[in-house]
Amino acid sequence: MNDRKLSLLMDFYELTMANGYFKDNKHNEIAVFDVFFRSIPDQGGYAIFAGLEQVVDYIKNLSFGEDEINFLRSKQVFLEDFLIYLRHFEFTCDIYSMKEGTPIFPHEPIMIVKGPILQCQLIETMILLTINHQSLIATKSARIVYAAQGRSVLEFGARRAHGYDASIFGARAAYISGAIGSSNTYVDYMYQIPAIGTMAHSYIQSYETEYDAFRAYANTYPKNTVLLVDTYNTLKEGVPNAIKIHKEILVPMGFRLKGIRLDSGDLTYLTKEARKMLDKEGLTDVKITVSNSLDEYLIKELIHQGAQIDSFGVGERLVTARSEAVFGGVFKLSAIEVDGELVPKIKISENVAKTTTPGFKQVYRFYDETGMAEADVMTLFDEVVDSREPYHLFDPNFPWKSKVIDNYTAIPLLVQIFEKGKLVYELPSLKEIRAYAKDEHVKLWPEVLRLEKPHEYYVDLSQSLWDLKQEMIKKYKK
Amino acid sequence: MNDRKLSLLMDFYELTMANGYFKDNKHNEIAVFDVFFRSIPDQGGYAIFAGLEQVVDYIKNLSFGEDEINFLRSKQVFLEDFLIYLRHFEFTCDIYSMKEGTPIFPHEPIMIVKGPILQCQLIETMILLTINHQSLIATKSARIVYAAQGRSVLEFGARRAHGYDASIFGARAAYISGAIGSSNTYVDYMYQIPAIGTMAHSYIQSYETEYDAFRAYANTYPKNTVLLVDTYNTLKEGVPNAIKIHKEILVPMGFRLKGIRLDSGDLTYLTKEARKMLDKEGLTDVKITVSNSLDEYLIKELIHQGAQIDSFGVGERLVTARSEAVFGGVFKLSAIEVDGELVPKIKISENVAKTTTPGFKQVYRFYDETGMAEADVMTLFDEVVDSREPYHLFDPNFPWKSKVIDNYTAIPLLVQIFEKGKLVYELPSLKEIRAYAKDEHVKLWPEVLRLEKPHEYYVDLSQSLWDLKQEMIKKYKK
Repeated sequence: MNDRKLSLLMDFYELTMANGYFKDNKHNEIAVFDVFFRSIPDQGGYAIFAGLEQVVDYIKNLSFGEDEINFLRSKQVFLEDFLIYLRHFEFTCDIYSMKEGTPIFPHEPIMIVKGPILQCQLIETMILLTINHQSLIATKSARIVYAAQGRSVLEFGARRAHGYDASIFGARAAYISGAIGSSNTYVDYMYQIPAIGTMAHSYIQSYETEYDAFRAYANTYPKNTVLLVDTYNTLKEGVPNAIKIHKEILVPMGFRLKGIRLDSGDLTYLTKEARKMLDKEGLTDVKITVSNSLDEYLIKELIHQGAQIDSFGVGERLVTARSEAVFGGVFKLSAIEVDGELVPKIKISENVAKTTTPGFKQVYRFYDETGMAEADVMTLFDEVVDSREPYHLFDPNFPWKSKVIDNYTAIPLLVQIFEKGKLVYELPSLKEIRAYAKDEHVKLWPEVLRLEKPHEYYVDLSQSLWDLKQEMIKKYKK
Repeated sequence: MNDRKLSLLMDFYELTMANGYFKDNKHNEIAVFDVFFRSIPDQGGYAIFAGLEQVVDYIKNLSFGEDEINFLRSKQVFLEDFLIYLRHFEFTCDIYSMKEGTPIFPHEPIMIVKGPILQCQLIETMILLTINHQSLIATKSARIVYAAQGRSVLEFGARRAHGYDASIFGARAAYISGAIGSSNTYVDYMYQIPAIGTMAHSYIQSYETEYDAFRAYANTYPKNTVLLVDTYNTLKEGVPNAIKIHKEILVPMGFRLKGIRLDSGDLTYLTKEARKMLDKEGLTDVKITVSNSLDEYLIKELIHQGAQIDSFGVGERLVTARSEAVFGGVFKLSAIEVDGELVPKIKISENVAKTTTPGFKQVYRFYDETGMAEADVMTLFDEVVDSREPYHLFDPNFPWKSKVIDNYTAIPLLVQIFEKGKLVYELPSLKEIRAYAKDEHVKLWPEVLRLEKPHEYYVDLSQSLWDLKQEMIKKYKK
């Protein structure tokens, strides 16, 4: 991404609006926009936030060259002064964001952009595109890793991804949520995500016999011989040949067979039988990897049936999030500065869930005394939550559902990334993000993590924010 | 893509296999690989081929720099001679392909790679990734354009695409299949796909009143005033304000209101009412555009209900092909040269549909005397189909279902793109591809085009190819 000039990757209306603001001399009015989403893919209990690093990259590189300005001029709708403004564009907004790897929930801001309204509006598409994509895949990966119950998950989807970036950043997002590697060599080169792979059926077919192919492979990679056993007949040829290779080729060289892989057939039956055949020969340490249109549902089913599997190669259904391929993050105005004061804005909808929460906000996560996440609470940005005082939690839709908690820790989730256009956040390494994601994941109750009918995690409003919202709704109704 | 070094975007097993071939001195054996797919997304009757131009770009740029070689060396599994080979890599394969915009069908080769097996194998992932992605979106776009029955379709999905390329090449693919433009400014800049867009709800909210926002917009864009009317109340405020703007602002300036856009609510009811209100004021020429999670099914339903819509903005469900987000193109060995002769290869499967069709092949499309496409026939590559002679078509699975046709034209669909690594195909412009796609689309019978339970288009085998396949299956069974 670094060398690509993608500054024009924005919805055209962002430019027409920006030009309009410029013409009306409104472009430096300070606005606040929230990024949030309304529902969790696959009716899950949580999503995982990812993509911040690429948003930062994009913003650091945001500028408009002469070619891009000439193109815009050719549209004959933009003021020349506006084009000059763009040519000398300087980003001066504040950005607050969740950290990558954070479990996130509907309706809470996961990123906030505050600054001149023209600038906020220009970056809408790229922020949404980046966060929606990576959060989608990170969320799907978390589900799949959860379903695998400690077995390894490998991201194998490059060939079915929606373009190059979808493969690259999809592998990155999958890794954040616990996949242990990827088939894509590029992400190892660029991001040190371990690249994994052995052979295709065509490799086996290119030799006279399966045994010849296995032998050639074992001779080349004796330390890491994983053999694809389903090209001809898994149990009658593939597994027996793999065992022969172990005995005849690897052991004499001082090595052991490392694993076998199956990509077709009845995976439960075949892995159970293969496991028996391997164990009978003392190859209890040989790992079995399977692939073939897997996702969290099939993995759960395979484990339930007692399939003997050590690692899952998950391709198209992870990298495209096939069961629900859309993460619906939106970018909505929440406040505008008037005479130096931030005035909250609300968008009312007939659909209660679509009415926005006004104002410049913060999100606190409340952990109980054992460190488990109890609820998130949206507050006004400047509100102080003092963990030494009891706190009154209540459901914003049914406020009589309430409780007072003490013995809690409340952590603000939105951290400042840019201050007046300057990067003030130290981006963690991918390994650190992955470790943080794992730490935060175990703080969610099993009822929130489960795949089917999870408990709905509480996302509440502070009393002050709730009062503000009710007041604005009332005012609007009049 | 041009300046990006994506050569390592390949499945790691391609490198381990390549290194194995190199070690066994098999790397220059000539092999033939077919790209084909097994089922049409959304149970449709046809798919649309797209992505060739990007495959060509990729291959033209395929080389391995010092950094990439050093990275591979660090893996400690590759022969030094193999790394030197890669450092001086020269592509020498032949590639044959369908033209972009061609309707394609399951099991027929849509691209063929013939050349040194090591080279064929190295480009597998990028070919599949590129073709799978763009063909997926081109196919989805064709369905949506078909459902719109002549009304305009606009691609609005950037913010929900799976990364930057998914937005860019998704817009390209959508345009090939008949979308008239995109919200993404970048694709206008790079590919001259018309960028389209007006304003977001936040623009309206940033002004004191909706009328103020409309007035500001109309003053800025009097020639092209399209107003978003659903921010507050579509029928009580939005449409009346739009009509006022027409009368009070645009007409005095010598212009007319161009359109209104709705992004929420009951689109059938609201567009019918809005149409009446506009028509009553003589604004019969004002266009109505709608958006909001549309796809071919919803569009069909809206039209069926008599919604008054001139154009559809289609976002996430087009750019992600949400209803079926995977196009399953595969890359399978079909022949290997032994002693200067191509020996066909077959992969037998218990699942009959998964047994491959062996040999180096061509695909002919048979058009009847009226120019309608009757069937595709896979033949051996060198077979001649003489349109002056009657031709015997038969179903390869049920060969007694057969007929003899005359008065036909048979056109070979696979054209040569690379000859011994040299580009020999003149890439058409995007406009030409789009026009070709339209021409070929109307040659499909309505029974094939329809969205529900389409007729299964015939993909047959020539007698020679059928004989070869049966013979190889028989030989294998022994």
